[in-house]
Amino acid sequence: MKIATLGPEGTFSQQAVNKAFPKAPILFCKTIKDVFITVDEGRADKGVVPIENSLGGGVSFTLDALQEYDLKIEAEEIVPIIHCLMAPKIVKPTEIKTLYLHPQTYAQCEEFIHRHLPNATVVETLSNADSAERVKNNGGTSACIAPEIAAEIYGLKILKKSVQDNQFNVTRFFVLSAEDGKVTGNTKTSLTVYPQVDRPGLLYEILGIFKEENINLTKIESRPSKGRLGDYIFYLDIAGSYYDEPVKMAILKLEKISFVKVLGSYERKY
Amino acid sequence: MKIATLGPEGTFSQQAVNKAFPKAPILFCKTIKDVFITVDEGRADKGVVPIENSLGGGVSFTLDALQEYDLKIEAEEIVPIIHCLMAPKIVKPTEIKTLYLHPQTYAQCEEFIHRHLPNATVVETLSNADSAERVKNNGGTSACIAPEIAAEIYGLKILKKSVQDNQFNVTRFFVLSAEDGKVTGNTKTSLTVYPQVDRPGLLYEILGIFKEENINLTKIESRPSKGRLGDYIFYLDIAGSYYDEPVKMAILKLEKISFVKVLGSYERKY
Repeated sequence: MKIATLGPEGTFSQQAVNKAFPKAPILFCKTIKDVFITVDEGRADKGVVPIENSLGGGVSFTLDALQEYDLKIEAEEIVPIIHCLMAPKIVKPTEIKTLYLHPQTYAQCEEFIHRHLPNATVVETLSNADSAERVKNNGGTSACIAPEIAAEIYGLKILKKSVQDNQFNVTRFFVLSAEDGKVTGNTKTSLTVYPQVDRPGLLYEILGIFKEENINLTKIESRPSKGRLGDYIFYLDIAGSYYDEPVKMAILKLEKISFVKVLGSYERKY
Repeated sequence: MKIATLGPEGTFSQQAVNKAFPKAPILFCKTIKDVFITVDEGRADKGVVPIENSLGGGVSFTLDALQEYDLKIEAEEIVPIIHCLMAPKIVKPTEIKTLYLHPQTYAQCEEFIHRHLPNATVVETLSNADSAERVKNNGGTSACIAPEIAAEIYGLKILKKSVQDNQFNVTRFFVLSAEDGKVTGNTKTSLTVYPQVDRPGLLYEILGIFKEENINLTKIESRPSKGRLGDYIFYLDIAGSYYDEPVKMAILKLEKISFVKVLGSYERKY
């Protein structure tokens, strides 16, 4: 079984694949959209994509692609985000002159950098793997902050593990498939709702439908419809599976006022 | 009057400042957070920051900083996003060998690039201004896609104007100030609501409060609270100003179940 995920090698996406499918061969894609296309065209059996981070929030590219492509969410995986300071050889942090950082990693390790690496010049990069590759090529007194797996891949030494400012930093990933997955145990369903009537209080009506069916809403996120500014699609996570009667009934009611797309039912992991 | 905004020179943020405060001197900041700090510390009179794009959605850094800092939104500005293909000299698109692109600009002009520049090698950059600067330095057969203003600043020639795939592409900006603005005309209020009780249907209850007061909700967005995964703060835009009795009443009711922060009341522009 082959798994598509966001490349290059040495990112948290790779760690998520290793957790969900240990030892499965990985096909690295250039963008999140490419992961969807690769699975859609059957060049990989499953796709693994980030959906939200506990600090950074929702991943727009994934939310938009879920609406655009007809893949099913068959599982969720929670991956702790542990950043490591790494360099070509063991040096003291004060000896580091250049620090390669992806902007998001920078934002997540700002305090650590301020306290321990006040003299390093920060160079922004396009991904954590890009940071590690540039340190490997430049050597000397350069360093980067990247996931542990990047040290292995690019042959770098870990100077300090777990340098992120907030210790409760996790990313939630979705496992995508062209077909519906098995639905057992404590399930959750993700769906999008795109209102087709425009009247005040419509979102209140939508949430009222779940209330009527005693369905608990665990998440709501809005994304632009890509039409006029102020027109939104809602991404919802609800308790239960699409085989449950109350969920089926709620969807029927929702369809009277909106386009509804069921993205998948899967086992709840947090 | 001095205005702080996101730098470097030659971005859509600069175009927003020019629209809201023609000819005012601009202080360019390195990050959106720096814009907030600069206004908060009184080093600039106002700040101008992007809040959402009609295709890309909400700007997380702005949403999070609105919650963190005590600045007031005193106005909104809508800026059309018009991307231009530019190069050091007038060349045919087919002669372009290297194309510098910010990933977001790439996503917004994908079809155009695919159709007109199929042979160009794409190099990703950190900002539209960075793209223009690299074209200026590399010259030759390189080009970039950036806002019109960048051509002026970096001395580049516009080969084609308005190359974005979707013509309804606008970004909404907020004007920030340390003090409350004047509130007249057709007003809107932005606020954050962070639930302090955990029970099913709480968001439904929150929206019900606005319904009771006949207040129309024009936008809802969720951001992680930065605590555990699945704990959210809601960003709401509602019709009316905080001087209106129904808005005051709704806030009083909301405060019984959540932390409420009023971000500002301002004239509605769309």
